[in-house]
Amino acid sequence: MRERLHPEEIQADGAGFLPSLAIDTVIFGFHEGQLKILLLEYKNTNWLALPGGFVRETENLNDAARRVLAERTSLQGIYLEQFYTFGDLDRYDPTPLRAIMSAHGLNYSDHHWLLRRFVSVGYYALVDFTKAVPVPDLLADRCDWYDLANLPPLMQDHQKIVQKALDTLRIELDRKLIGFNLLSETFTMADLQRLYETILGQKLHRSGFQRKMLSLEILERLDKQYSGGAHKAPYLYRFAFDKKPE
Amino acid sequence: MRERLHPEEIQADGAGFLPSLAIDTVIFGFHEGQLKILLLEYKNTNWLALPGGFVRETENLNDAARRVLAERTSLQGIYLEQFYTFGDLDRYDPTPLRAIMSAHGLNYSDHHWLLRRFVSVGYYALVDFTKAVPVPDLLADRCDWYDLANLPPLMQDHQKIVQKALDTLRIELDRKLIGFNLLSETFTMADLQRLYETILGQKLHRSGFQRKMLSLEILERLDKQYSGGAHKAPYLYRFAFDKKPE
Repeated sequence: MRERLHPEEIQADGAGFLPSLAIDTVIFGFHEGQLKILLLEYKNTNWLALPGGFVRETENLNDAARRVLAERTSLQGIYLEQFYTFGDLDRYDPTPLRAIMSAHGLNYSDHHWLLRRFVSVGYYALVDFTKAVPVPDLLADRCDWYDLANLPPLMQDHQKIVQKALDTLRIELDRKLIGFNLLSETFTMADLQRLYETILGQKLHRSGFQRKMLSLEILERLDKQYSGGAHKAPYLYRFAFDKKPE
Repeated sequence: MRERLHPEEIQADGAGFLPSLAIDTVIFGFHEGQLKILLLEYKNTNWLALPGGFVRETENLNDAARRVLAERTSLQGIYLEQFYTFGDLDRYDPTPLRAIMSAHGLNYSDHHWLLRRFVSVGYYALVDFTKAVPVPDLLADRCDWYDLANLPPLMQDHQKIVQKALDTLRIELDRKLIGFNLLSETFTMADLQRLYETILGQKLHRSGFQRKMLSLEILERLDKQYSGGAHKAPYLYRFAFDKKPE
């Protein structure tokens, strides 16, 4: 895992990047009833932050988000969903960034581009955190999964960004389910219900849940295989092939 | 109605504005089965565009969107909803802006800030177009409602922005219904159904529609008033008071 600040980004004038525009990513991780998010800890400071970065003049905004996530966490091929752009004046507080730059032994002036106001485009993703393991390298700040129910204080307005991402995920889960590629090729209705309960943070009624999921018309029920004595084996489902996003 | 370009914005260095960040607004207007959007026509050019503008260094992003809409169209107090941020490299084509600046008799260099790449934050709103009447002033470019089903070619990627806004509106209509304040204080289920059919561009089944709307739990059914001979008067509804956004 690399550090939040790259050699290019700490140039005083920000040459090569779009000024005033940042990216922050909220990576939700779930596994067996647990919901976590991925946070970076800055070296030699106590600041915790979302994996974030900046947009090169020569790349698409959405490509920049994928690059930033890969650079900060070594996670590749995560399906990121843009969800909101944060542009309040009061989100900007240069204090943490000054501390971080000092901790890196940087001399900087008050005109350094990183100390100016940024509007940040937020992206979220949902992954199985046992499969998406951030890989630290020698320069590493810490990068770890943190329990969503018990978050430490975050830098700037990152707590607000996390909450907005969670609200969006909960509202959009039905429509994003296939794209996030969360379950194995085939799964039971109980597997799916456990995923929903983890994300929504509440128990659901089995029959109502099943009825709702079937009404979405994204599931294909597989023929039961004869499996010896397991006469009460649950049906297996998979996502209907023609509903998968391209 | 004022022009898209303001005296401050046509300064070469863009002082006072966030560089590289723009705003575009998609204002949907409906009335009696018709769906339109609001477009600006630039003076002395054939370019049609969404009402748009830029973010001052001293204002919140969402406030800038409301200001931009008010300045370009004279429409005040419209409830705007941020929906997506457009940042592809290929959205940027300086040709129309050069033509517009020339049509305004402006001398400009290739380094003019308006000719650089912009990422644009999209906002949409939904209004009754008989109540939201853009008011032209003496400097006016044209600003009019255009049939969504029969749009003229738009500047840059504005056609794509309109389509994304429409997709979002259709998906979010249930949740945004109250905030947009579209109907009179009380309304019939048929009024509501007509609104949905206009937005979705398709006929809906009456009973299924009623069942779905009631399941949203945002409607309050009023007691029938005795109204003489109108023994088949439909029920009137209003939005449940405690569900209104603050």
